[in-house]
Amino acid sequence: MKIDGKHFRSIWRMPTGEVQIIDQRWLPHDLRIVTLATRQDFADAIREMWVRGAPLIGATAAYGMAVQMAADPSDDALRETWEILHETRPTAINLKWALDEMTRVLAPLSAGDRAAAAFARADEICEEDVETNRQIGLNGLEIIREIARRKGGGRVNVLTHCNAGWPATVDWGTATSPIYHAVEDGIDVHVFVDETRPRNQGAQLTSWELNSHGVSHDLIVDNAGGHLMQHGEVDLVIVGTDRTTARGDVCNKIGTYLKALAAKANGVPFYVALPSPTIDWTVSDGVKEIPIEERGGEEVTHVQGRDPEGRIISVQISPDGTPARNPAFDVTPAELVTGLITERGVCPATEEGLAAMFPDLKGR
Amino acid sequence: MKIDGKHFRSIWRMPTGEVQIIDQRWLPHDLRIVTLATRQDFADAIREMWVRGAPLIGATAAYGMAVQMAADPSDDALRETWEILHETRPTAINLKWALDEMTRVLAPLSAGDRAAAAFARADEICEEDVETNRQIGLNGLEIIREIARRKGGGRVNVLTHCNAGWPATVDWGTATSPIYHAVEDGIDVHVFVDETRPRNQGAQLTSWELNSHGVSHDLIVDNAGGHLMQHGEVDLVIVGTDRTTARGDVCNKIGTYLKALAAKANGVPFYVALPSPTIDWTVSDGVKEIPIEERGGEEVTHVQGRDPEGRIISVQISPDGTPARNPAFDVTPAELVTGLITERGVCPATEEGLAAMFPDLKGR
Repeated sequence: MKIDGKHFRSIWRMPTGEVQIIDQRWLPHDLRIVTLATRQDFADAIREMWVRGAPLIGATAAYGMAVQMAADPSDDALRETWEILHETRPTAINLKWALDEMTRVLAPLSAGDRAAAAFARADEICEEDVETNRQIGLNGLEIIREIARRKGGGRVNVLTHCNAGWPATVDWGTATSPIYHAVEDGIDVHVFVDETRPRNQGAQLTSWELNSHGVSHDLIVDNAGGHLMQHGEVDLVIVGTDRTTARGDVCNKIGTYLKALAAKANGVPFYVALPSPTIDWTVSDGVKEIPIEERGGEEVTHVQGRDPEGRIISVQISPDGTPARNPAFDVTPAELVTGLITERGVCPATEEGLAAMFPDLKGR
Repeated sequence: MKIDGKHFRSIWRMPTGEVQIIDQRWLPHDLRIVTLATRQDFADAIREMWVRGAPLIGATAAYGMAVQMAADPSDDALRETWEILHETRPTAINLKWALDEMTRVLAPLSAGDRAAAAFARADEICEEDVETNRQIGLNGLEIIREIARRKGGGRVNVLTHCNAGWPATVDWGTATSPIYHAVEDGIDVHVFVDETRPRNQGAQLTSWELNSHGVSHDLIVDNAGGHLMQHGEVDLVIVGTDRTTARGDVCNKIGTYLKALAAKANGVPFYVALPSPTIDWTVSDGVKEIPIEERGGEEVTHVQGRDPEGRIISVQISPDGTPARNPAFDVTPAELVTGLITERGVCPATEEGLAAMFPDLKGR
């Protein structure tokens, strides 16, 4: 999508072949573009969240594998790279999907053929992601259109959590794709953006990308969504997901579950936008089976922002030495989910719904 | 309660008669004590949240009335002071209660008698608040004791939102009073402290006061409580309230409602600790009838904390010009509330429950 009128993706190859990304840690205050040159760069970029969002993590890992194949295309390097990149963000299922896919393509090839094939497959993974997200947008657009029709053309208010926007994917975003498509369709859409503590992806990224495209929005604290739903100010919720189970339980950024509870209590439709690689067919009960990453407490005790002098700094909000707990994701049980917006269509968040939509993938 | 071993209240009179408070905007980083000398000082202190918390706002307003009576004890001044102080925080029912109570005492007196009577009644309001909170603590202690007994002496995990601690009252706190009493009783209590965006009263005040007393705790983001409840890590929730309706709907800091929904969904008892002046007998349906204060968006787009050089500053977390909505409170419907912990005992959050506990107050 566009930044200051210029089209960007979140990851791309230069004409010289180098892989570049936007280092998203400095958004929205600073647009820093960096080149990832070594496997270690890619591992750091994923672990330290220079890139984030399940689809972009997958694409980044694919290029990380390709860069390593150019340096050392041996079987050992292939296996080691899978391990090194996989352990950077254990919750992200797209990461494992992309690494498995690269291994599937590369393992049968001779060492000399691997680098070129790896870059080609990584490029394809990016293009497939863009097309997938475009389809998610078209499918989600139908839901927004129907609400706009029911409201007689009035403003459609969407609440979203975290950033499942284009910077979380290669382009379009997942949760934002229906919104961008609705805006292009001429529907009056307004977005309530959860700030999404502790890392404030909503405040830093979603506000930024919606603003760049002229989409009407209000930033809110994570605490406010329940109140807004209680007072009829939200017509639907659309969020992304890091991992969806075979029965439709949704693992997403911490706090998603609270919004799903509020949506259910207030009769607000709660949709999850997801590309099919986000589905983990091996897991059924998300609450019991998905291990939740616990991150460092300093993300809770400190907040990053721009100080009055324009520097990006971190301020401490609690007393010295305050202990903190920092689970990074939570699981929204399928019964709270109105529907799953996928690249093939919208299906119920049930084992039957997912299996009927993806009979070719189920059981993988 | 204690700060560095020395006993403090949140508001007090000096031997010379001057009223002093802790300017809570600088906690936890800086303990600043200020003297409030004029009615304007008191209005600023309440509006700008140098003091906050329903009981402390009431006590502060009472002293504000007394200070004005010393300057001008006329009927006009009495009426004007009620207006000026009342409009500082329209949601806080204790504010109106304290101002009405002062007016009830002062109106029949001659102008010459008003200043002394006003200070005497304001002093009494403070002492009554301390005793009320002590009784709330003893009544809430029984609930924690019962959970500790059921858990066979294991750790009792309490989640709280915002700060209903001693800095929100004159002393003891409301939601924290049962916790302090449980600690004194030798029960192994652990507190999960919601940071409570946008103003971070949990991170800044609750963490600070629990740390000062050696109460085990973890700071968490507001998004995390649902996940912790889903995984059995929370035994009960205790929050305070700014206003409770005659049928038990609870108006409290924004985000309380989301925690109540999560508690209900996960079978976690959800208690509200409140002194009886917090009950608004004139209101029944809290969601429909209570006007919710909307505060400035800069509280959402900015976060205050201590920078690496030790200065207390505000950092901007969103892009320049990001619009924000900032409702400051929400209403938790009575059906989500397990019980109300009052100074007289614990009652159901129902019209019958409250009427039976306070037959002398109902209808006021």
